[in-house]
Amino acid sequence: MTDRPIYDRVALIGLGLIAGSMAHAMRRGGLVGEIVGTARSPETRDIAREIGLCDRVVDSAVEAVADADLIVLAVPVGAMGAVAEEIAPHLMPGATLTDVGSVKRHVIDTVAPHVPEGVHFIPAHPLAGTEHSGPRSGFASLFDNRWCLIVPPEGADPEAVARLCALWQAMGANTEEMDADHHDLVLAVTSHTPHLIAYTMVGVADHLRRVTDSEVIKYSAAGFRDFTRIAASDPTMWRDVFLTNKEATLDILGRFTEELFVLQRAIRQGDGQKLYDYFTRTRAIRRGIIEAGQDTAAPDFGRTKIEDK
Amino acid sequence: MTDRPIYDRVALIGLGLIAGSMAHAMRRGGLVGEIVGTARSPETRDIAREIGLCDRVVDSAVEAVADADLIVLAVPVGAMGAVAEEIAPHLMPGATLTDVGSVKRHVIDTVAPHVPEGVHFIPAHPLAGTEHSGPRSGFASLFDNRWCLIVPPEGADPEAVARLCALWQAMGANTEEMDADHHDLVLAVTSHTPHLIAYTMVGVADHLRRVTDSEVIKYSAAGFRDFTRIAASDPTMWRDVFLTNKEATLDILGRFTEELFVLQRAIRQGDGQKLYDYFTRTRAIRRGIIEAGQDTAAPDFGRTKIEDK
Repeated sequence: MTDRPIYDRVALIGLGLIAGSMAHAMRRGGLVGEIVGTARSPETRDIAREIGLCDRVVDSAVEAVADADLIVLAVPVGAMGAVAEEIAPHLMPGATLTDVGSVKRHVIDTVAPHVPEGVHFIPAHPLAGTEHSGPRSGFASLFDNRWCLIVPPEGADPEAVARLCALWQAMGANTEEMDADHHDLVLAVTSHTPHLIAYTMVGVADHLRRVTDSEVIKYSAAGFRDFTRIAASDPTMWRDVFLTNKEATLDILGRFTEELFVLQRAIRQGDGQKLYDYFTRTRAIRRGIIEAGQDTAAPDFGRTKIEDK
Repeated sequence: MTDRPIYDRVALIGLGLIAGSMAHAMRRGGLVGEIVGTARSPETRDIAREIGLCDRVVDSAVEAVADADLIVLAVPVGAMGAVAEEIAPHLMPGATLTDVGSVKRHVIDTVAPHVPEGVHFIPAHPLAGTEHSGPRSGFASLFDNRWCLIVPPEGADPEAVARLCALWQAMGANTEEMDADHHDLVLAVTSHTPHLIAYTMVGVADHLRRVTDSEVIKYSAAGFRDFTRIAASDPTMWRDVFLTNKEATLDILGRFTEELFVLQRAIRQGDGQKLYDYFTRTRAIRRGIIEAGQDTAAPDFGRTKIEDK
């Protein structure tokens, strides 16, 4: 895809779904020289070695960053500050330090203070994922046609930013620059609050005595199923997201509850017109998503076809 | 699939996603003699004729039911009583009258009083659907490996019930009998409340001034997308569901709000352990759904693969 590698040595700190998919995507395109990986858990490192996820898997983050010109923090948002502090003295001058966290203000506040002069710190966030996690869950096409938001701090080196964008684009993503606070609000709407609501709905079903768990599971195809997929995402990652994007999430949750009460009241009062009008408006947003290429219009996400295989 | 047709003449009243898929599935298996269809809107009837959805498309429900041994009410739940009243005098003795509505108590209360003696009234509800609606949206495999709940009133003729079950099974579904009130509660949990919540979340995004519609759409892959699919379902159908399954929906909504406030408080107080434990429990339900064959474990519902085609 490129004549010479975009980076010579990439260090992946954390080997979950995102880092694993990056490894696959970088290899698919022949985008970088060497891929070095590490993870805190010995079990994860063993699996990564077994499946050949990286060119080298090393036992510590300090080892991993040696001579790396791109370092990717791919650990839960709450762990990034500590990892940054640990690796900071070992970063190569001129290297780029980036991350893939779902929250950006908190990452900047906790990581930036440790970044030594001469190292480019350029946070990023690929908007892609599945409900699976761990070193076996990654795949090369995860970022294809998805967005990766780049959140360069003020005064960031334009060349370093362009190089990171080039890597994400070569991995299949579209890139866009965004301010950290706006990023956190947009994600609170499109991701964090929907996840919390899905977790809640699945929890309600789990608690309900008059309906058994097996009924909930058996009859899930009627809508509940889509909530459980979201609610199966990595618990540590999501705990950290809510703790570190607290204000925006609570803001959107407040709006959500207000809105829910309006619809609840319409149901209680039998106001069919209000419900009909509301449901008609929401339908239009769906059409926009299909047109923007961010989902397939195939019935049921093409599930039937998949199952036929 | 069968030596002789399960029914000789099936009348489909309403030609949306469910009736259309039934027509395709009945033809796929050669399950019935003639399929006669009708819809209230002339446009729907014209499309049905154009695409050859039924053997005959007629202009009124009264015409459609003539000599039919199975009559399927496939109109919004709120319209079923009026249709039943209209066709009742024209139903053939010995015929089976069924429906595909998402709420069962209300359908029984409004339809049963009109059913003449000698006609078997056996309500049913296939738990299958997509976000699409209208006469073009149906497909033969919609019911494959999905559940169809059969809700026979007390004293229903066992032979008539068995025959209707045989049709649903031959269309690919698994069948199970259930009491009307329990059905409405189970569906409030697995379908009706999730839909209302999805509609609400999409509505919140729509109202938020600081985040533009185009941002919501562009960055929807991070979770929001799955909500919009649900929230794109037919507005008339869903209005009627909430108006006619009011008590169970309000009950579950109340539990949902309680539960949401618990998580909201955990976020506000920074109680990471509570969030982590909650998210770990909900993950187990997802595994149950995959094991029960009600969803695919393919990453992202196999979306990537679909888009690659």
